[in-house]
Amino acid sequence: MKIDIHTHILPKTWPNLAERYGYGGFVQLEHDADNGETAKMMKDGKLFRVVEKNCWDIESRIADMEKFKVSVQVLSTVPVMFSYWAKAADALDLSKILNDDLAGMVNKYPSKFVALGTVPMQDPLLAAEEIKRCVVDLGMSGIQIGSHINNWNLDAPELIPVWKTCEDLKCSVFVHPWDMPSLDGRHSKYWMPWLVGMPMETTTAICSMVMGGVLHNFPGLKVCFAHGGGSYPFTIGRIEHGYKVRPDLCATNCSRSPREFCGKFYTDSLVHDSNALRMLLDVIGKDRVMLGTDYPFPLGELEPGSLIESMDDLGYLKEKLLYENAMEFLNVDRSRFEN
Amino acid sequence: MKIDIHTHILPKTWPNLAERYGYGGFVQLEHDADNGETAKMMKDGKLFRVVEKNCWDIESRIADMEKFKVSVQVLSTVPVMFSYWAKAADALDLSKILNDDLAGMVNKYPSKFVALGTVPMQDPLLAAEEIKRCVVDLGMSGIQIGSHINNWNLDAPELIPVWKTCEDLKCSVFVHPWDMPSLDGRHSKYWMPWLVGMPMETTTAICSMVMGGVLHNFPGLKVCFAHGGGSYPFTIGRIEHGYKVRPDLCATNCSRSPREFCGKFYTDSLVHDSNALRMLLDVIGKDRVMLGTDYPFPLGELEPGSLIESMDDLGYLKEKLLYENAMEFLNVDRSRFEN
Repeated sequence: MKIDIHTHILPKTWPNLAERYGYGGFVQLEHDADNGETAKMMKDGKLFRVVEKNCWDIESRIADMEKFKVSVQVLSTVPVMFSYWAKAADALDLSKILNDDLAGMVNKYPSKFVALGTVPMQDPLLAAEEIKRCVVDLGMSGIQIGSHINNWNLDAPELIPVWKTCEDLKCSVFVHPWDMPSLDGRHSKYWMPWLVGMPMETTTAICSMVMGGVLHNFPGLKVCFAHGGGSYPFTIGRIEHGYKVRPDLCATNCSRSPREFCGKFYTDSLVHDSNALRMLLDVIGKDRVMLGTDYPFPLGELEPGSLIESMDDLGYLKEKLLYENAMEFLNVDRSRFEN
Repeated sequence: MKIDIHTHILPKTWPNLAERYGYGGFVQLEHDADNGETAKMMKDGKLFRVVEKNCWDIESRIADMEKFKVSVQVLSTVPVMFSYWAKAADALDLSKILNDDLAGMVNKYPSKFVALGTVPMQDPLLAAEEIKRCVVDLGMSGIQIGSHINNWNLDAPELIPVWKTCEDLKCSVFVHPWDMPSLDGRHSKYWMPWLVGMPMETTTAICSMVMGGVLHNFPGLKVCFAHGGGSYPFTIGRIEHGYKVRPDLCATNCSRSPREFCGKFYTDSLVHDSNALRMLLDVIGKDRVMLGTDYPFPLGELEPGSLIESMDDLGYLKEKLLYENAMEFLNVDRSRFEN
């Protein structure tokens, strides 16, 4: 059995959002005249990314899953769709469109898919309402959020209603890096926003939830960070040491040191390197790392599960990494996937 | 024997630079009226950092070295002194002041200290001249530079004369993160510019020298990156995978993949974590990691060498990490330190 905690999907179509909301900045999908094999994600008339059919077509995904023996995909939107910069009511409306589409796919194949919803984090009370709808009405296991929300890191006090709602509803949270500060300027070469900026974003998100006291104040909250936790697992020594020698800067919001929270949160396994995966298990915990591939994007693990499966020294941990830890994170039972 | 590759030092005094150059932005040292035990690094009248006597007083350093059984300190300035933003002629003048001071200390205790000079990187031809003076006239082993120079990353073609000069003169290069883009705004809490921004800066510097072709084009250049290479060792899998799947973005300047350069450059050992140090040795190479402590600053290893010495599984590698690799990097012979 393999559960892939980290996959992205889009609806095949959605309304013209610039017309619907009266301003631009949103992504639309333009399908190419090639029998529906590819489409362009367009942002204000400019190409953002070319995607293939498996980015919106559930049957194509099932074919890929069979090919790579992936039992279950956990579906979440593409982070550029978060639209935290937009008017909150419009981001809520768009979130509902995306969430209804996700729920439709899961309802069609409940043994093959689990959904993580999208919510308008820029308005935490609206976000809390949509979280309730996702979990209670649509039966979702959790939500996917960005590594920050405009000028808020994840320790912003404004976000407390979101964490409270998630904890109360057992709504798991998958944190994905996005909106990297390094997109422009001197960091823009060699794909560095994705290769360097994203791990930094994720590390910032973990530091904010740890040193900001979120994980301390909401001990029931289940949070998973993408891409093996960015660079956090390797730099935990530096972060822990910094916390100890400069409590005036680091211990302002949380009296427990960063190391104490290792084992309290989850990461996916997407590190593309066996040494890094071993370190991840040592630092984050053998019960806290879950197969995640970033499917269907090229920076992901192109043969889902191949790194874990290639590491003979993992032994019984393989089962944990491939699906057991994910079932625990998602609060789902094996029987759901055995139809 | 222990050689500490990464220590910082300032002159006890230097001229008023605002008066000397006619504009502000420089750091001055204001000694406190406490028997010379502490001083304030002041920038345009604002406190930058309080430092202790061991930041400028060579005898205090020797006392600390004896206490922790450090045989040799490799001395370099504090990165805020780089002054790459200043007029090049002024940065050259300041570099000469700093380098003459460094050389004076090494001349006084040649068996206890090695110096890495500072050069005005914003003007690569002036920098090359000062590199020659540092190596040929002052007998230095290398230079310390910042992780970027204003808007240039270390792959900027303007810097080619610097790399050529260093390669020709066997001048080793120690790259230190500085001028983090995350100093302000949402990254400013919890000391994140130092805990998250610095590792990102170092990773950017390594990516720029690797994918920018600098290490390929100057195979004789010896480069060491501070703080265990930032987050590069943990994210090498992601970087390598990115290079392979998007050569249009990543392979523009170098036809060899990032992984091929592991073993070609050095890092210090400053990771504060035994798992991270083991991974560093696996990725960077057992001949390429050197004791470095960031002495005398609190984010450094406060008992120099204690992490390496605590790891029984290192065996014969301890000697390499504690001094052998450093002698090779610095092009110095053991006999120099045996007076």
